[in-house]
Parts: sequence; C-alpha cells; structure tokens
Amino acid sequence: MSELKVRCFTVSLDGYGAGPNQSLENPMGEGAGALHQWFRGTRTFQRMMGDESKGADGPDEDFAARGFENVGAWILGRNMFAPNRGPWPDDGWKGWWGDEPPYHVPVFVLTHHPRAPLEMKGGTTFYFVTDGIESAYAQAREAANGKDVRVGGGASIATQCLQAGLLDRIDLHVAPILLGGGVRLFAGADLTRLELVESSASEKVAHLSYRPT
Amino acid sequence: MSELKVRCFTVSLDGYGAGPNQSLENPMGEGAGALHQWFRGTRTFQRMMGDESKGADGPDEDFAARGFENVGAWILGRNMFAPNRGPWPDDGWKGWWGDEPPYHVPVFVLTHHPRAPLEMKGGTTFYFVTDGIESAYAQAREAANGKDVRVGGGASIATQCLQAGLLDRIDLHVAPILLGGGVRLFAGADLTRLELVESSASEKVAHLSYRPT
Repeated sequence: MSELKVRCFTVSLDGYGAGPNQSLENPMGEGAGALHQWFRGTRTFQRMMGDESKGADGPDEDFAARGFENVGAWILGRNMFAPNRGPWPDDGWKGWWGDEPPYHVPVFVLTHHPRAPLEMKGGTTFYFVTDGIESAYAQAREAANGKDVRVGGGASIATQCLQAGLLDRIDLHVAPILLGGGVRLFAGADLTRLELVESSASEKVAHLSYRPT
Repeated sequence: MSELKVRCFTVSLDGYGAGPNQSLENPMGEGAGALHQWFRGTRTFQRMMGDESKGADGPDEDFAARGFENVGAWILGRNMFAPNRGPWPDDGWKGWWGDEPPYHVPVFVLTHHPRAPLEMKGGTTFYFVTDGIESAYAQAREAANGKDVRVGGGASIATQCLQAGLLDRIDLHVAPILLGGGVRLFAGADLTRLELVESSASEKVAHLSYRPT
C-alpha cells in the first residue's frame, strides 16, 4: 500500500532542520552543512554523485538507501526548490540539482504562486501545487501509482503533513551538533504521540524511525 | 577523575525538556509527564519508590542505573527545587521530594536569592549558590570528593554548563512525543560539536550519549 514517508530528515541536537540565514550561497542556512555529513559518507549518496567506488556501508547507508526505495513521487516545499520567495521571477531557475535532478519521478512543489510544470532530464517533472498539502498529497499519490510518496522537506512541509494526519513514517536523524537557531522541525505542532519503531546509530548520527499513532 | 555529567535528561522529539505552563500541580509543565514514562518503568525508579519487586531490566534500566552511579554531588536549578520564583518566602518549602530526598549527597541549587543550607534526612543537604554556575560546580566538585557531579536540570542549568565548557558527558533521552512548547534544551547555545559515543533504544525512548569536544 502506498505510504507517505519523511525519510532522511536530519535535525541538530537542538531541533533545527536548517540553520539560520538561508541564502543562495547557504541554501540550508549557516552551519547546516554539518547536518548531512552522515549522508555524504554513504554509498547511496556517492552513487548519486556518479562515483560507484566511494561511500561506506553500515547503519548510515541502510537508512540512506531506504530513503530511495519504492518512491513513486516526492513532495517538496518551495524553499527546498528555490532560494527566492514570492511570485516566480522569469529567471530560468530549475531547482538546485542541475538538468538531471536525482528524483527521476514526479515531484510536487508546494507554493503560493502558480507556475507551469517543468520537465527535466531523467524522468523528473516538477509540478507546482498552490491549493495546499492535502491536494499535493492526493496528486502525488496518484502519480506514484501504488508506490510510496516521500516528503523531501523542508521542516514546514513535514510539519504540515504531520498536522494533517497524513504521515505513515518519519525517519529522523539526529546529528551531534548545535545550530543555535534556524528552522525547527515540528514547530507549533499539536500534541502528538509517535511510536519509536526502529533505531540505530553510527559515530556520525543517530537514526530514529517513528510511526504516528 | 571527577566528571560533570548530565544524566537521564529527557527531551521531546521537538526538543523540549519541560512542557508549557509549569505550576505546583504540573511541575514539569503540561504534557511532560509522558516525557519520563521510560524512567518510571525502570527497576532503579521503582527501588527509589521503595518497591524492590517492580520495574524492568533492559536498555532503559541500564541508563537509569548509570545516572546514580558514582555521584558525589548534584547541581540543580532553582526551578527544579521550587515552584515559586524571586526571594524565598518563609513557607517551609523543602523541595518536591519529602523529608528524605533521593539524592543522599550534597545538592547545590543555583539561585539568585540567598538562603541558609537545608539538611534533610538520608544524607541530602541543599546548599543555595548565588554566584553562578562556575562557583556551583567548584563547590559541588569539592563536596563530591573525587566522585562525579551530576547536573539534575533543568534545561537552563544544563545549557549554562555546556556554554561554560564544563560538561564531560550528556545522556539525552528522546521521548516519542511532541510537546509543542515549553522549555527548550540548549536554547541559544553557541555552535558546539558533540561526539555521539553511545546509543540504544527501547520502544519507549531513544538513549543518546554525547561527549562535548
């Protein structure tokens, strides 16, 4: 059965999913590069970068690989797709990932501002959804055709999915750093009970997998 | 060698160490009772409550028991000791724990308001320290006489210890709940790198042990 999953979402020990002062130079905010150090060391990431020979196996690789298994569509927030805000300027921006993004399936970008779909190389098409998270999920689930839908982030989209009761699984990764500011995961969420269904760790990160109940 | 350790400090998945609206009825704030559910299930806690027959072994018990091993003194924040704020009223308040608190060693309470030491049954004496965290630690370390000093909380004291570079170890326990507000651990801390040195989990909680570097 198709499920909606937050995968590979890394937070700092003080609960931030992105650092302060996000910009074109620092898309994840200041200091946040260290958040994803664990992911960059995995075989899955190195393969995405085109190098089959690098990257390690182990608990980090297990969670990284799982993040791309059986994914038929993605949901992203506008801030994950572009550094600017407001109506889309005519600047040819096609996301952070070059001509062939690493999705290879339909990607639904939640935004307040309409934009025509954007077909990229390698099977990725960006669709821009302006009528809310429930609509984005309905469209993504249909496009996924029985496979899962992965929530790519950021923190605001993951929180909206949780609040709407849509999430089936949340894989969180707690990096041993403090950011001291930035974008917090699940900020302002209602009281919610989650079940810790799996955990493991390396020296770089703790992996915690939850199911909302 | 004597070390300064945060032990058994539980945070919600959204990073709160206590819930909103702390009061006499809700000393840990609303919803925060669920934070420490894992601890109440341990043999260590049940023994503290006087029942040798209850409580389970396992990863939760391992971390709970360790929290009381080799502890020669404690440091607490004022809010861990009393529900009121400001100058001490003449109300006979002697802490939340009755005539025989579960410390059995000297306890140093950080406060802005002087108060005479308070000797309790069973070896616990509360000392009230008004000249800051470094002084509290110096006094606690001397009183501990070679044993460790445990930081009992709350979040503000643990953050002050981290900021002052005093901490040797932080045992965090991540409970699978969202509090949506309250007192955040390490709020406003500077960028700090921590080393994840140990982890385990039960269905109730994830145990993560860090060493500041």
